[in-house]
This record gives sequence, structure tokens and C-alpha cells, in this order.
Amino acid sequence: MQLYSYHSSSASYRVRIALALKGIAYEYVAVPLLGKAAQNRAPAYAALNPQRLVPLLVDGDVRIAQSLAILDYLEETHPAPPLLPTDPAGRARVRSLALHVACEIQPLNNLRVRARLAGALGASREAVTAWQLHWMHEGLQALEAMLAAAPARFCHGDAPTLADCCLVPQLFNARAIAADLAPYPHLCRVDAACLELPAFQAALPERQPDAPPGGLA
Amino acid sequence: MQLYSYHSSSASYRVRIALALKGIAYEYVAVPLLGKAAQNRAPAYAALNPQRLVPLLVDGDVRIAQSLAILDYLEETHPAPPLLPTDPAGRARVRSLALHVACEIQPLNNLRVRARLAGALGASREAVTAWQLHWMHEGLQALEAMLAAAPARFCHGDAPTLADCCLVPQLFNARAIAADLAPYPHLCRVDAACLELPAFQAALPERQPDAPPGGLA
Repeated sequence: MQLYSYHSSSASYRVRIALALKGIAYEYVAVPLLGKAAQNRAPAYAALNPQRLVPLLVDGDVRIAQSLAILDYLEETHPAPPLLPTDPAGRARVRSLALHVACEIQPLNNLRVRARLAGALGASREAVTAWQLHWMHEGLQALEAMLAAAPARFCHGDAPTLADCCLVPQLFNARAIAADLAPYPHLCRVDAACLELPAFQAALPERQPDAPPGGLA
Repeated sequence: MQLYSYHSSSASYRVRIALALKGIAYEYVAVPLLGKAAQNRAPAYAALNPQRLVPLLVDGDVRIAQSLAILDYLEETHPAPPLLPTDPAGRARVRSLALHVACEIQPLNNLRVRARLAGALGASREAVTAWQLHWMHEGLQALEAMLAAAPARFCHGDAPTLADCCLVPQLFNARAIAADLAPYPHLCRVDAACLELPAFQAALPERQPDAPPGGLA
């Protein structure tokens, strides 16, 4: 199995966590996303993945774009340990949390969106950061309210799920823009519980082969 | 079962299609999203759905936010007719198509994002439309390439799946901004096949109880 990934891509990070939790060995293929070295829009990568984004999972003849599609595929093909509860209501709650990250926060703040804001719309650096913080807080407030309504060690119950695979990378992104996390005690508590686990540690951006040798900026 | 929906919300539209395909009766609860009549951020709705977005599905004690979480829940609780293939690779392809719509196109172009572009960033009406068209074409190109690689009557095979539940509302949005769909013959062909089916017709924005009586603007 091969994972096309970028160390600080939070969508790639989600998949790295799931692979580590399930103990699946894989080859890490770095796809640079920044500046002149960017490869995600190059023809060779576009031929592999028409979506031209990371992550991409390659499992024999199967190629899967979209992190949440990869997470479901891993859950179906490598069911132990499970990253979804067994009851439909619990599964829906986990998916709802994961999708809130994947559809409402990350898409609005990622690299290509920031580049478009600064480029086509001429937004200043400060305006781009304000944009990021706005959507980050908007999303984290919703997640905090959902966790506060059913507090547990992890996002859902006493073992990590797909929701935790999405939450931890999103909080990594939040810290990268110095978002104040004080209003989110449930999110911070769950994040800390996750980061105690070796699988979450192995997936950290700074531990990936393509991380800059001097540490993240 | 109750669906909190807005007629022209494409995420609500996805769920309406799935409910109709599966023949599930439900109560339609309109949640106005526009102007002074907007209810999605009002305390009563936020208490039901901390995400403060539509759609929301209520099934007895279960409340589910996020359209794709709802689609999976419906698939698990009402498996016939299936909206996912049975093989993991096929399921992953369908999810990847659906998620490309739900994570890469719709989040960048929805109402609250357009309002933020015009408000906080002071973008002109033309700049907002250009933004919408940019992300629309970026996403549709990826979907077209994926369908071209494995053409079928629907997005995946000869029956509708979750991918079709997402594609058709996205093309509705594309037409609403007069996007040129000529470069996407596979998408248009599949869209037309879907719209021949009564379930897709029943889910159309203009057929919902909260659609303006004189037709959509």
C-alpha cells in the first residue's frame, strides 16, 4: 500500500493516523504542494489522481482520492481495530463530527484557498488570517457543542474513531494559525488523549519523511 | 422521520434524493437561510443542530447533521435499494466522487462563504461570481475525468449511488451561476439519466414546500 501525502496536509494526516491505528504498513510517497516544487498539479500525479490533491491511497489496482473515502475503505478492508461504532446512530454521530471538519473547516482554509484569496481577490495577509480564524472558530464551536453534549474520553466513547482522526489534524491547523483554543476544553481534552497514543504520534507532521529537517516553521 | 431542509440548499437536495430513491416518507421542515427570515442560527435550531446548517435528519431520538452522514445512516438503516456498491473498491470510488463534491466544491461556494467574501473581504459581485466559477470548474473537471475513466449510465454502474445524489445538486448549483457545462459531457449525460427518474424529480428545489410560489429566481 502506498500513501501519497504531504507532511502538513491535514487531510493526509487523518489517513496516517488511521493507518497507524490499524497497524497497516505502507510506503510514504511525498507530494510537494508548495511553490515551484509543487507536484500535485503536474501531469504525472494528475494521471494517478484527477482530483490533484493529497492524500491518495494506492492499494494494488485500487486508487482512492479523498481522505474520508480512504478511511472508510480501510475500515472495510482492515476492520480491526474498528474506527466506527457498531450502532447506526453512533456511526452517524462519528461521521457527522468527521464531516464537519472535512466539509466546513478544512476546505475553507487550505493552501489553494488561501492562495486564491491573496491572488484573485487581493486579500492582505491579515485578511487571509482573519478569514482562516473565522471559519476555524465557527467550526470548532460546533464541534465543542457536540462533544459537550456527550463527553467521553475520545470524540465518541472510549476508543478513537474516524472523528478523532479528523479532529487532531484540525487542531494542529488551529495551532498553526495561533487560534485561541481556550473556549474548547472538550476538544483540547480529547486531542490530548489522542496524542498520548503512539499511533497519533507516528502520524505527526514533523515525523514524516518530507518534513523539513529543522522542524516545522 | 423529519428532514430540516432548505429548498435550494444543495446539501439538503442530496438527502431528499436518497430519501426518495429509498421510498422513505418524511416530514419536510423548512429552515429559511436568507436575510431576516433566516432561522439556521436562531437558538431554537442551534439547540437541535449545533452545526447550525441544513440538512438535519431527525429519526426518533437520533439527530444527524451533515448530508453525507445522513446518507450513510439511511444506507445502513434502509438498505434497499442500495446506494453503494458491495465491493470495497467500488464503494471507495462512489465515496470519492461524492466527497469531491461535498469537500471541494460546495463548501467554497455556499451562501455563508459568498456573504463573507462580499462582507469581510469587500469582494464585488463580479469577484464573488468569478470565485464561484473557479471552484466549480476546478471540481467539475476532476469529476469529469473520473467519470471518463469508467463511463456508465450513472456515476458508478447502472443504478444511482451516493455519487449521483451529490452530482445532480451540484450541477443544479452550476446552472444557477450559468457555468458553461459543455466541457463536461459525462457529467451532463449522467445528470440527464438521473433526472429521468421520479425520485430525482421529487427532490428538485422547485418542488419543495418552501420554494417561492412563482418559481426559482
